Amino acid sequence: MSIVLGPNQYGKSEVRLVRVDRDTPRHRITDLNITSQLRGDFRAAHESGDNSGVIATDTQKNTVQAFARDGVGSPEAFLLRLARHFLAEPQVTGGRWRAEQYGWERIGAGTPDGAGTSDAGAGHDHSFVRGAAERRTALVHADDAGLTLLAGLSDVTVLKSTGSEFSGFPRDRYTTLPETDDRILATDVTAWWRYDASFTDAAGPADHDERFAAVRELLLTTFAGLHSLALQQTVFAMGSAVLEAFDDIAEIRLSCPNNHHFLVDLEPFGLDNPGEVFFAADRPYGLIEAAVQRSENTATEHPVWSTIGGFV
Amino acid sequence: MSIVLGPNQYGKSEVRLVRVDRDTPRHRITDLNITSQLRGDFRAAHESGDNSGVIATDTQKNTVQAFARDGVGSPEAFLLRLARHFLAEPQVTGGRWRAEQYGWERIGAGTPDGAGTSDAGAGHDHSFVRGAAERRTALVHADDAGLTLLAGLSDVTVLKSTGSEFSGFPRDRYTTLPETDDRILATDVTAWWRYDASFTDAAGPADHDERFAAVRELLLTTFAGLHSLALQQTVFAMGSAVLEAFDDIAEIRLSCPNNHHFLVDLEPFGLDNPGEVFFAADRPYGLIEAAVQRSENTATEHPVWSTIGGFV
Amino acid sequence: MSIVLGPNQYGKSEVRLVRVDRDTPRHRITDLNITSQLRGDFRAAHESGDNSGVIATDTQKNTVQAFARDGVGSPEAFLLRLARHFLAEPQVTGGRWRAEQYGWERIGAGTPDGAGTSDAGAGHDHSFVRGAAERRTALVHADDAGLTLLAGLSDVTVLKSTGSEFSGFPRDRYTTLPETDDRILATDVTAWWRYDASFTDAAGPADHDERFAAVRELLLTTFAGLHSLALQQTVFAMGSAVLEAFDDIAEIRLSCPNNHHFLVDLEPFGLDNPGEVFFAADRPYGLIEAAVQRSENTATEHPVWSTIGGFV
Amino acid sequence: MSIVLGPNQYGKSEVRLVRVDRDTPRHRITDLNITSQLRGDFRAAHESGDNSGVIATDTQKNTVQAFARDGVGSPEAFLLRLARHFLAEPQVTGGRWRAEQYGWERIGAGTPDGAGTSDAGAGHDHSFVRGAAERRTALVHADDAGLTLLAGLSDVTVLKSTGSEFSGFPRDRYTTLPETDDRILATDVTAWWRYDASFTDAAGPADHDERFAAVRELLLTTFAGLHSLALQQTVFAMGSAVLEAFDDIAEIRLSCPNNHHFLVDLEPFGLDNPGEVFFAADRPYGLIEAAVQRSENTATEHPVWSTIGGFV
Repeated sequence: MSIVLGPNQYGKSEVRLVRVDRDTPRHRITDLNITSQLRGDFRAAHESGDNSGVIATDTQKNTVQAFARDGVGSPEAFLLRLARHFLAEPQVTGGRWRAEQYGWERIGAGTPDGAGTSDAGAGHDHSFVRGAAERRTALVHADDAGLTLLAGLSDVTVLKSTGSEFSGFPRDRYTTLPETDDRILATDVTAWWRYDASFTDAAGPADHDERFAAVRELLLTTFAGLHSLALQQTVFAMGSAVLEAFDDIAEIRLSCPNNHHFLVDLEPFGLDNPGEVFFAADRPYGLIEAAVQRSENTATEHPVWSTIGGFV
Repeated sequence: MSIVLGPNQYGKSEVRLVRVDRDTPRHRITDLNITSQLRGDFRAAHESGDNSGVIATDTQKNTVQAFARDGVGSPEAFLLRLARHFLAEPQVTGGRWRAEQYGWERIGAGTPDGAGTSDAGAGHDHSFVRGAAERRTALVHADDAGLTLLAGLSDVTVLKSTGSEFSGFPRDRYTTLPETDDRILATDVTAWWRYDASFTDAAGPADHDERFAAVRELLLTTFAGLHSLALQQTVFAMGSAVLEAFDDIAEIRLSCPNNHHFLVDLEPFGLDNPGEVFFAADRPYGLIEAAVQRSENTATEHPVWSTIGGFV
Repeated sequence: MSIVLGPNQYGKSEVRLVRVDRDTPRHRITDLNITSQLRGDFRAAHESGDNSGVIATDTQKNTVQAFARDGVGSPEAFLLRLARHFLAEPQVTGGRWRAEQYGWERIGAGTPDGAGTSDAGAGHDHSFVRGAAERRTALVHADDAGLTLLAGLSDVTVLKSTGSEFSGFPRDRYTTLPETDDRILATDVTAWWRYDASFTDAAGPADHDERFAAVRELLLTTFAGLHSLALQQTVFAMGSAVLEAFDDIAEIRLSCPNNHHFLVDLEPFGLDNPGEVFFAADRPYGLIEAAVQRSENTATEHPVWSTIGGFV
Repeated sequence: MSIVLGPNQYGKSEVRLVRVDRDTPRHRITDLNITSQLRGDFRAAHESGDNSGVIATDTQKNTVQAFARDGVGSPEAFLLRLARHFLAEPQVTGGRWRAEQYGWERIGAGTPDGAGTSDAGAGHDHSFVRGAAERRTALVHADDAGLTLLAGLSDVTVLKSTGSEFSGFPRDRYTTLPETDDRILATDVTAWWRYDASFTDAAGPADHDERFAAVRELLLTTFAGLHSLALQQTVFAMGSAVLEAFDDIAEIRLSCPNNHHFLVDLEPFGLDNPGEVFFAADRPYGLIEAAVQRSENTATEHPVWSTIGGFV
């Protein structure tokens, strides 16, 4: 028995790339945070500091920046392009490329678009204001089985001021929570959905943006529309709606904190509180995480999921 | 000569208050972070731990929550109400009350409103999604001279992809920056404007919201519209536009980091870079801060400004 | 084919628990952040909002607090106790319990101890000051195969001001990084090590603390002692040292950003810079992640690792 | 009446400077975050974008880095040197220079020193581990009256597990807090002390470090030693101790959140809780701020204080 190197990866994290498309006076901006990580045979570097196979993380950053010269397109398309470039090196047998995109709206436009880029007819040609704190995300995973494409979103903060209950849960020695048939339900949605090969291989950039916007819209409207008996039920309904709508999405995973809003007890002050005054707590918070899948692919866990932090 | 207590204040910070207006099925939510700080004769507590005059910070929190039972209205109106309540106590001779408001948009509405509350005709009745990371702010300052009302905004992140130059600056031994006639200009606008007594005393809640939205709009459109030779010029123009438009605003102060976006040198890779690929740096950043005033009140600094952190 | 619930878990995150042991005038404090997550048959809650099997996250929080009444001991022992409690419920078939511990030192003690609690002879009996920003971590994972115990540490920030090189890496079209035989090497060490059953089942609380301190010390001294040709080499050496020292640690995984410190070019100012003035960059940063294992257990990935975010 | 430029300043914020002193094999590191802001006649830049007087913020950053080539010494000495350099320019009539210093300890040393630099006999020659999250701070303010020097510290987190009461406060309609004669008292101390001219002008670098360490020690031991009837009393005692010990400190200001630790009610679980199990809350928190002064200089507020954020 000996001590050996196990799974490993390395790369450059959080390359903050801003691309301005300025072919016409009506500029477009794409604002990304890119991480590139390579896997392969890097034993020599670990065991003896032999870097002859180690594509420097600085080189990975340079590559991200140089590739942006030809245009970025969707984050999904850009990551696929990076992946194919690095996989051409013999010592690279896999990797993970990840992007976060920040949304900007044209000043004076009035109407943001959810896709993170702005090209509506209205608004200023080259002046922008940052949109919501939420982020669009994408990830490409490469291993012996090929490329896997995920798209997602993070920190989409939503709240229902009614239409949410929580009751019927078991009561033991440590249970003090009262049942309620009307509470605030609030969460920060993080979701990742996995495209199957038909979408990954066929789609062009325009499709990625459109699809992202459609999935985001579906997640929001499902959250809004469902009378919720448990955050679990809402999470499952959101995931199911996406799989029902899009045959080429194989699986979706959601991670949703329960951002507790506690009804303030105003009785000591001689006041009632019919669901109007709440204290928004920071910690602790509930955390509900679930995968929604198609029945034919539940037998084995897709390896991409081990690369997603804090999930299920 | 002896050691004595100097200026002091105390209170409860960051009471996270969420108010749901549910008189009709079309709910409205007001999401605030409130800080209350009292000034007065609190020497006994400091010198001997005698708390007989110390309105507990817990009591201040309770008061915020109880007052919300009657409705919140604008953050400005709510803070004025809190101020007047605490100033009725004999030992309280002044104080500072501050609010941050977070914006929510109705799911499905498409059109957010900048005022931080949502009541447009479109969108879901009781389901909301968090808007931009920017925050609306308000502050009431009380001292012997009475109440002073500030309104403001924080972290309104804006960017111009062209229409910004920087040249003509002096060059000394330590100057290496090249001059440029086309750069990205980006900043996170923090602004505070001080209302004069005519507005503070007269205005009702609706007016605060409308005025906030108008000032925000003016700051954004001025940023967008000005061909900028220096961030200082942009900052002064933004402030001037507000004072020109509203006679009852006595002064405005802006704090604007210069969020550097560096053009990436792609020449080592055989590529040009005509203003298209940028690296968004975190630190260090420029920081431009200025007050814009009316000529009749420049002689003395209004005491409220000493309470605003990191400013001028 | 139908849409089904996949892997899922739920619970209460970040219960901020502070335990004071005050049996004698010389108090001890244990400062923890606890997360409890359950797995099992929770399909009814997801599919129809039937909560009859859902142990409320509020109940999980209450359990954490109530269990602390009997003393906490080491974070590892406390998590094992929580796991066994919840696994006694028939619908719970697995779960994950996680802790972060914050270190405090006695005021006036002079000598902190790395284990996060303080009982040296020196220093004040009941007054403490927070130690380093680093955190001690622990995790218990339960599935059909039983309990798995991890211990770890996060954000142990270390720096070598010499004794680090990086050269011999391949150069392609996108490579501009010069080779160096003397650079600053700095990282924030996050590590998780997995105990085998002999340690997990046998050890009492005292042993956990002692072992944690020994592994932390070994990681630091290995970082300090190795002349580094690559951060990969340092990471592998740190992991190997731990496996060599402790037979009952089956595997260790490390995640180490390369916190770049760039030598400032002072030549424009007529100055040399012989490794003395550096700019500490925020982003992007390198990221080196590796598992170090024993040769007999490399065939399959232990399922606990899929629960650790952002790793390998 | 016209619209005019009021007070203004500009500069470069958060230059992350790491200085390695390597004259001998036993290296020393100084890890700083420096901000430089200039005041003077910058009307032309604001009014018309005329930058002929504007020392570029990039030049300010370069100056910081170039000056470090000659050694940094204490943060106080380094800021004074920067101030004098920039004040030599005719258009610069004042300014503010600020530093944060991060502490590092030698790996293997066992004994950290509070001054943020490490040169004890023990420990590794060139390998370091980051110390506590607290920061040492310094600030130089320049105006027509000359230079003013402040030193300080931030986020020194301290906790007493007993020896703290809070009772005797007034009770009104909104008071629900019970009185207590035994609670946890915890805070993050931020303090700034102002040196008088005798110290500012006379002191060499060594003195700054020694003085900082002495003041920090005094703040901690006063916190520890006082049986506290109110956080106000503790704050005043900490400040008074510093003024009593050092004649050349003219004034000190402290800002101390009350980090609430709530005793958990375990009665629903059939358990008592004699001051042992606490919930550490995030928000809201109390906030106690006070200046401690010498009686001869209470008449007017020193202008430096308007530059310190969030204070009194």
